[in-house]
Amino acid sequence: MRQRYQLKQRPQRSRSYESDEHERGACEWCEYALVITLATILLIGVSALTIFWTFFYREGYGWADDIPEKQFNLHPTLMVAGFITFSGFSVLLYRICRCFRRIYVKLLHAIFHALAFPCIVIGFLAVLDFHNKKGINNFYSLHSWVGFVAMGLFGLQYAVGFFSFLLLLICNKGTANFRASLVPIHAAFGILTFVLGVCACLTGLTEKALFTLGAERYSGLPDEGVIINAIGVAIIAILAVVMYIVSRDKFKADSREMRASVDL
Amino acid sequence: MRQRYQLKQRPQRSRSYESDEHERGACEWCEYALVITLATILLIGVSALTIFWTFFYREGYGWADDIPEKQFNLHPTLMVAGFITFSGFSVLLYRICRCFRRIYVKLLHAIFHALAFPCIVIGFLAVLDFHNKKGINNFYSLHSWVGFVAMGLFGLQYAVGFFSFLLLLICNKGTANFRASLVPIHAAFGILTFVLGVCACLTGLTEKALFTLGAERYSGLPDEGVIINAIGVAIIAILAVVMYIVSRDKFKADSREMRASVDL
Ligand code: HEM
Ligand code: HEM
Repeated sequence: MRQRYQLKQRPQRSRSYESDEHERGACEWCEYALVITLATILLIGVSALTIFWTFFYREGYGWADDIPEKQFNLHPTLMVAGFITFSGFSVLLYRICRCFRRIYVKLLHAIFHALAFPCIVIGFLAVLDFHNKKGINNFYSLHSWVGFVAMGLFGLQYAVGFFSFLLLLICNKGTANFRASLVPIHAAFGILTFVLGVCACLTGLTEKALFTLGAERYSGLPDEGVIINAIGVAIIAILAVVMYIVSRDKFKADSREMRASVDL
Repeated sequence: MRQRYQLKQRPQRSRSYESDEHERGACEWCEYALVITLATILLIGVSALTIFWTFFYREGYGWADDIPEKQFNLHPTLMVAGFITFSGFSVLLYRICRCFRRIYVKLLHAIFHALAFPCIVIGFLAVLDFHNKKGINNFYSLHSWVGFVAMGLFGLQYAVGFFSFLLLLICNKGTANFRASLVPIHAAFGILTFVLGVCACLTGLTEKALFTLGAERYSGLPDEGVIINAIGVAIIAILAVVMYIVSRDKFKADSREMRASVDL
């Protein structure tokens, strides 16, 4: 329906954002509400499930010297919170808060990433310190290499985003073209960072399952194995929903909205 | 440069594909050639590296009953070939063969996926049969769950794509709207399938490293560990290049080109 409508309307491309809003059918709002609700449940659910797993099977958290495993437990929890839950919400914000003024959405985006930042730093320090306490080598695994790239990109994205989309607003007019040209790059690298975060989580869960359950027990699929796999499946579902929303919007708003987002 | 130019030109949106071609600067062709070359080297390189790994460290291939491990070795090789090398080329074709007629590009796309198909089927049967021979449970790991979803999506995409973009050409005019409305969905799900293939490969490599090297030796990062990690890093690099190319094009051609692709 919608698609055919778009095709017919193709030549007339100057519809404004507001009129677009009015033309949306009930069916579309329904889909929109459904997807946003699903995303919210999954994003909160995956962190809740990780915390449940830690308390029920892995004896909770800690940073004392006697049980370094409790300190390790901070790693998956904080990484999932930072790279999946907070980052996921931060990306979805641009779709959830359609009627907010742009500057508020941008601030919320920055705030959610500001919440993700310490999670990622502490989550990384937790496993680094755990390795050092136990005398295990650092950065030997594919997981740690993927994680390293993901964290590096996250840092870069944060620095570039903060500098260009917030600081440069001081000189709004003069930097508009520059900021506009950065938006697609920032968006593309943002999605890449998110996907790499997902890859890091999935490889990390696989490692952890084999370390603590062992190949033998894991292949019998005990309760804990199901929980670990379920965390992974939830992350995959989040990936699918986020990519769906991002791609839908691309075709919906023809990336004009993104360009418009550089205005205040 | 290019971006500023685009901004200025924004209101005039009816430039045709051909004129776009003429307006491209030397700088852009250079970037284009670079990215395509890089993608080609990586796509062929990752399969070559996997085959090298198998022969040098894992004693090559086979399907005899005496050494089931040789049969397992078909699994990573064929999965990387199917989900990464062939699928990667198949996606990139749409950017590489810009001057071909659409129908030929579509046929090439279908042919590359037709090459990927048996790789994936045999790669899956190899590990299934390996598990049954060794009496190991099926579908217990997060890796196998991710792989299952990836293979399911691949099959669906193939069926839908074959039916709607090739078969329905029999009635070209009558199905144009329907096919046009499927393009963005097919593209979005295609990228999701590719990303899930990447996730399956990375978790599989992690598992394999821990199974054959063991946690102890892997953490010492022996030669084989480096090779396994390098395969993973190559896959990550391919993911980055593919996502870069796909996103570039999105902003470049405003998805009109994609719509145009439903014409013969
Ligand atoms: C985006 C999320 C994640 C990132 C960026 C990340 C990053 C890292 C890094 C850089 C290391 C290496 C630390 C060192 O060598 O000293 C590491 C280790 C580890 N991580 Fe993660 N991680 C993530 C999520 C997870 C999750 C969800 C789990 C699940 C339990 C996990 C399990 C592990 C394990 C078991 C280790 C120790 C073994 C090793 O070095 O590979 N990680 N992580
Ligand atoms: C997109 C690529 C891939 C897909 C779709 C895939 C799919 C699967 C599936 C469905 C299974 C379960 C078979 C069963 O339970 O009977 C499996 C097992 C396995 N795969 Fe893969 N795979 C892929 C790539 C790889 C790669 C690159 C490796 C690297 C060595 C690998 C290593 C393994 C291992 C060790 C197993 C046996 C343990 C287990 O069931 O988890 N896979 N794969």
